[in-house]
Amino acid sequence: MNRILNFGMVGGGAGAFIGGVHRTAACMDHRARFVAGALSSTPERSIASGKALGLTDDRNYPTWEAMLAGELARPPAGSNPTRSVGVPEDRIDFVSIVTPNHMHFPVARAFTEAGFNVVCDKPLVHTGEQAAELTRLCAAKGTVFAVTYNYSGYPMVKQARAIVAAGELGAIRKVIVEYHQGWLAGDLGDQKQAAWRADPAKSGAGGAVGDIGTHAEQLASYVSGLDLESVCGELTAFVPGRRLDDDANLLLRFRPRGGVAARGVLIASQIAVGCENDLRLRVFGETGSLEWRQEEPNQLVVRSRDIPERVLRRGNAYLGDAAKKGTRLPSGHPEAFLEAFANVYANAMDAMLARAGGPGAAEAYDFPGLRDGARGVALIEAAAGTRGVHQNWTRIPAE
Amino acid sequence: MNRILNFGMVGGGAGAFIGGVHRTAACMDHRARFVAGALSSTPERSIASGKALGLTDDRNYPTWEAMLAGELARPPAGSNPTRSVGVPEDRIDFVSIVTPNHMHFPVARAFTEAGFNVVCDKPLVHTGEQAAELTRLCAAKGTVFAVTYNYSGYPMVKQARAIVAAGELGAIRKVIVEYHQGWLAGDLGDQKQAAWRADPAKSGAGGAVGDIGTHAEQLASYVSGLDLESVCGELTAFVPGRRLDDDANLLLRFRPRGGVAARGVLIASQIAVGCENDLRLRVFGETGSLEWRQEEPNQLVVRSRDIPERVLRRGNAYLGDAAKKGTRLPSGHPEAFLEAFANVYANAMDAMLARAGGPGAAEAYDFPGLRDGARGVALIEAAAGTRGVHQNWTRIPAE
Amino acid sequence: MNRILNFGMVGGGAGAFIGGVHRTAACMDHRARFVAGALSSTPERSIASGKALGLTDDRNYPTWEAMLAGELARPPAGSNPTRSVGVPEDRIDFVSIVTPNHMHFPVARAFTEAGFNVVCDKPLVHTGEQAAELTRLCAAKGTVFAVTYNYSGYPMVKQARAIVAAGELGAIRKVIVEYHQGWLAGDLGDQKQAAWRADPAKSGAGGAVGDIGTHAEQLASYVSGLDLESVCGELTAFVPGRRLDDDANLLLRFRPRGGVAARGVLIASQIAVGCENDLRLRVFGETGSLEWRQEEPNQLVVRSRDIPERVLRRGNAYLGDAAKKGTRLPSGHPEAFLEAFANVYANAMDAMLARAGGPGAAEAYDFPGLRDGARGVALIEAAAGTRGVHQNWTRIPAE
Amino acid sequence: MNRILNFGMVGGGAGAFIGGVHRTAACMDHRARFVAGALSSTPERSIASGKALGLTDDRNYPTWEAMLAGELARPPAGSNPTRSVGVPEDRIDFVSIVTPNHMHFPVARAFTEAGFNVVCDKPLVHTGEQAAELTRLCAAKGTVFAVTYNYSGYPMVKQARAIVAAGELGAIRKVIVEYHQGWLAGDLGDQKQAAWRADPAKSGAGGAVGDIGTHAEQLASYVSGLDLESVCGELTAFVPGRRLDDDANLLLRFRPRGGVAARGVLIASQIAVGCENDLRLRVFGETGSLEWRQEEPNQLVVRSRDIPERVLRRGNAYLGDAAKKGTRLPSGHPEAFLEAFANVYANAMDAMLARAGGPGAAEAYDFPGLRDGARGVALIEAAAGTRGVHQNWTRIPAE
Repeated sequence: MNRILNFGMVGGGAGAFIGGVHRTAACMDHRARFVAGALSSTPERSIASGKALGLTDDRNYPTWEAMLAGELARPPAGSNPTRSVGVPEDRIDFVSIVTPNHMHFPVARAFTEAGFNVVCDKPLVHTGEQAAELTRLCAAKGTVFAVTYNYSGYPMVKQARAIVAAGELGAIRKVIVEYHQGWLAGDLGDQKQAAWRADPAKSGAGGAVGDIGTHAEQLASYVSGLDLESVCGELTAFVPGRRLDDDANLLLRFRPRGGVAARGVLIASQIAVGCENDLRLRVFGETGSLEWRQEEPNQLVVRSRDIPERVLRRGNAYLGDAAKKGTRLPSGHPEAFLEAFANVYANAMDAMLARAGGPGAAEAYDFPGLRDGARGVALIEAAAGTRGVHQNWTRIPAE
Repeated sequence: MNRILNFGMVGGGAGAFIGGVHRTAACMDHRARFVAGALSSTPERSIASGKALGLTDDRNYPTWEAMLAGELARPPAGSNPTRSVGVPEDRIDFVSIVTPNHMHFPVARAFTEAGFNVVCDKPLVHTGEQAAELTRLCAAKGTVFAVTYNYSGYPMVKQARAIVAAGELGAIRKVIVEYHQGWLAGDLGDQKQAAWRADPAKSGAGGAVGDIGTHAEQLASYVSGLDLESVCGELTAFVPGRRLDDDANLLLRFRPRGGVAARGVLIASQIAVGCENDLRLRVFGETGSLEWRQEEPNQLVVRSRDIPERVLRRGNAYLGDAAKKGTRLPSGHPEAFLEAFANVYANAMDAMLARAGGPGAAEAYDFPGLRDGARGVALIEAAAGTRGVHQNWTRIPAE
Repeated sequence: MNRILNFGMVGGGAGAFIGGVHRTAACMDHRARFVAGALSSTPERSIASGKALGLTDDRNYPTWEAMLAGELARPPAGSNPTRSVGVPEDRIDFVSIVTPNHMHFPVARAFTEAGFNVVCDKPLVHTGEQAAELTRLCAAKGTVFAVTYNYSGYPMVKQARAIVAAGELGAIRKVIVEYHQGWLAGDLGDQKQAAWRADPAKSGAGGAVGDIGTHAEQLASYVSGLDLESVCGELTAFVPGRRLDDDANLLLRFRPRGGVAARGVLIASQIAVGCENDLRLRVFGETGSLEWRQEEPNQLVVRSRDIPERVLRRGNAYLGDAAKKGTRLPSGHPEAFLEAFANVYANAMDAMLARAGGPGAAEAYDFPGLRDGARGVALIEAAAGTRGVHQNWTRIPAE
Repeated sequence: MNRILNFGMVGGGAGAFIGGVHRTAACMDHRARFVAGALSSTPERSIASGKALGLTDDRNYPTWEAMLAGELARPPAGSNPTRSVGVPEDRIDFVSIVTPNHMHFPVARAFTEAGFNVVCDKPLVHTGEQAAELTRLCAAKGTVFAVTYNYSGYPMVKQARAIVAAGELGAIRKVIVEYHQGWLAGDLGDQKQAAWRADPAKSGAGGAVGDIGTHAEQLASYVSGLDLESVCGELTAFVPGRRLDDDANLLLRFRPRGGVAARGVLIASQIAVGCENDLRLRVFGETGSLEWRQEEPNQLVVRSRDIPERVLRRGNAYLGDAAKKGTRLPSGHPEAFLEAFANVYANAMDAMLARAGGPGAAEAYDFPGLRDGARGVALIEAAAGTRGVHQNWTRIPAE
């Protein structure tokens, strides 16, 4: 029996969709225990949320600063070796940061500096400098830092990555990654989820490109193993009055790998009426290709020259180790979003437990971290630089 | 904040796939707490499993009889009104029975008789008499009894039921329900899951028809609102040496409803090589039809005369209350098997909490219960009676 | 350059959907020429239809008897060896019979007896005796007789047959064939296509089972290579006042092959609201299975134990000879209903041309013939015998 | 009965895939008759092909110049009013030009100048000047000129266009059009189809962007009703030694319509291993969206806010006139590539027949013409200008 890990949350109070997702994901395998929180942006709302979620009063903190201090005052996790499954009263093993984007940096910096492991939502921070600072700090402290690019937690995405890494597609030539949502096609109205996303001070320089474009980039990079070299594209705000892009179309160039400089297309849109959460990836190599869709996550289509298309499905013996490790149910018993999210937590928790084994022990674990987070920030900065800029467009003569 | 319910399990020890599913489903929404168990068929294995799953020694019981006695010795659930979220040390609120089939009846009877709520796996029991006895007993005790026909927990299945109930398809003429698996296409080998299923003493009179045919029947009845009147069919054991059917094909007649006596087909097979967990339902009415597949559970296809086919998806505002209640994530963020399973628990737990409100308070809750369980037993008995019997087959002349 | 074949039609006048299909299919590859016809059931309508379709007056016959006589008076096909591509003025090479069912037998018998090749729509005739007589007559005359079970003309159906024949699925255990249409879910109204189908005197003893159930049976038999041994089932007429079944559900037993007596299910319904022409087939063997749907005819799904599902697509090099022969366009350029229909004609025309090579020369050609036609008649006779008969149904006790 | 039209072909001899497609498409509805040809690039091969295809010797021409002269020497089409269905011996009504691209211009100019109607394959010509010259000439002569952008012939594409035109999606914001093929992922080897496409002198300045990118552009423009304003993109030749692009990724800006300047993405690739002929279109408006795929051409997905997704299928009564006119078979009886191609011919032939009614009579017919052809040429010229040019790309910092 592994030790059960204690965790707290900053953000994620009542009404915040993603907070509940983090809690369910962290606890899905009965390996983590939600014990502390500073769950909202005001002390009153924080305390109320904590009560509703069953936190004990002594760990239901009014602010994240109070939580940091309060937890540091407790004995370190694992300090009681006589209890095999961990002691709820111990200091938290990690903090999950699920606030609006602008709070990620100060909270993550403070907890990392204090030696806590961190799980942080995406996009990581607002600037490349902030990302670099977190990276330096985390390396110095030896803590685990996960960024919840949850789509890379799907078993069939892990299988896709393994297929590319094994060279089954040959050198990669092209990557097409798309993320279509329609929920911002109209006015924001009073949707809480939408409000802060439309405010550059809270959301950062990217609208759709930051909110979902970074997911797309991470998925593409994770599976292809390629690094972006440069982007050329256009961000548009279609809804009148919107200050951040709600539609992003980017051409991609990747750094050469295997003698081939791959090209790509990244489309991220939140005005795609009728699309729900339509993230999809296609990767084309010299000898094969693959295709995956988030809305049908249990399957992966693989195509090669001269043989029939193959449809791989989660839960089967023919899959590789990474896909198998991230699988809870037999084939045909579909798994979905929450399980993938839980896989990010599961692998990060493995890394946290392994950390006790000494420096570097956590390296081998397969979860998105600061490197992924920094790449997303770089994408936003590069793409946002294109906004309003007229590139080298060639006119089509009017008829 | 609702009171958190305590539960224990009989069966579901280490290595039993379905035990983990029940635990994860019950705890998904942080409304239940796993505190007790008699997890296996021998005291040694029970204790070992309980340790591995973190049960405290005083509630890690060697046998289900010991568990029953031990829990009765604790204060009743909810007896400490000062703790809003329930006290872990209290008596269990319900027991989940996830043993092989032959143990369902004695365990369910004993716990029901002692006044515990029960969640029991399917098929319920071996005989109609046993089902009737449980039904009488449960009515007398006023306890909640859920049978985990988990597929009826899917939101889009609930939507399908609502569509039929609202008359949108007209009177129902035909129901086609299928459940195809391939995992028993070959020899059992040493698969633990397969072994007891092939033993009539443990599994009951039905092989495939009992294991998955009852799921199919329940799904068909739940959605269509119809009652089976009679069946005509054939059970076959294709794998040499197998004592129970691994393939069942049944023609169905339903009792008249709305002036129409519907017809149907039920196919349940575990030798369908290449199929994983392919449960699917089609319902045809006078003016419309619907189609649902378990392996793509987030969508429901509805067809009506003279207008385009519609594809309804989970998480959208246009769905009805039952589907919405059973939904945790926004549209496009797929939910799957575990969430549906959790919905059976969630609604049963609602009923358990409502029970305090007096007799009948729990009636309104939407979860499969003894009535569904008894219908499944009746199906097995009717279908198994056809085994080996030559019905009124008409020969096709040889050419 | 092959000789271009002359053909005439009995039935298929203006307004008859299937007549145009036959003409387009026959002529698709520029190998046949429509030169004669007795196109309707009255002389006036026949002549009018022939004019509209461009027949010359001398071959636009008022009745099929006149056509038979008129064509016999012309020089036999191919009698002018100096014209490589055939002479339009020659006697027809074959007649296509596309009348309502009750006319198939007299017309087919007369033309066969006169030595003409025949292409006849399905179901072949009304009784097994009639089928046997045509079979004897055709054998005696050495003519070619095709029955347009057009769905067996699809390349991916031919591939499916080849896969089964090669033993890739192991011995066949189960066949599920379904044919769902919704167009007869309501009153006939004044649809011409529907009217004669509802009249037993014109349609024969089968409604849905004859009109589309025979297609299903032929598809199942063609692909599986199995022969039906007996059926048990139920025909229902759901629409009030309808004299023939509009819904048929049959359990199937096949004669043993490879040591296995396969079981099956055949569903044929014309009250399946929202279904268009939903013919689909699944075949399960000991080690693999396949699935094909008429509405997505360019692909064939093949599944085997322990490897990913494969999706075979028309037009690829990995397919077998029969599928390749029936292919006109490259992969990804979809072919459909008309091309499959044309394949029946193409292979039958190959057989007609081969006939000149001596007895038996035409045997090798892959098109549905009298054997298929007779099997369909046997199915109707067996199934229609079940109508109104209560088989050995087992009652489900009322709750 | 309409007059049957005579036609001849330039190009399309034995072995040319697309030649057979044109012949089958033109003749599918028995409204056209193939009577003349100059079928290949040398007199010997031309004559041999004509013989194989059954042309009579007097109209089996060695060169297109001979064909032009020979046909002009015949009486004009329709000059014999006593024959209702047209006289085969008359002058051709139109010529189909199916040569490699570089021959389109001289042949089309000469036949147009001589007063013949023309059906020409795509891309139309090599330069905008050539396109403009044909446009001027055709207007002066009053002839019909169709360019076989065959994908716009699909009924469900016509329905998509009608939906956009009716404003059902609101003002259009975004168009994503893709065309993926994999057949040029490797070396050309000795494929005849591939050879001339790789030669700029024969193919023009565009590789993939010309061969299939123009199809994509035409489909996008046809459905959306929008006009391209400018493009920004990148053409790549992935296969070593290839002189023309085999992969094109373009960002699109459309001229404002309804107050919205739409954005778009066009992807055309012939190195997409495993893709066959994967042309697909998505159009997003302010209130709805639609999606169509060439490989499943009988359906069209339409999505609107707040209601379920709808799947429209060919052959149903709820479709509009344009889709109905282009439909030959009932719903569920799939139509495909050839029928769509035939629709281009059918509508062009309607226009040819209507031309007799006076100037402008042919304008109303729905087929791709010189305007479409010129747009494709403009796209190639604009996109090819981007080749090798580094646009305003923003570098992503290396990690």
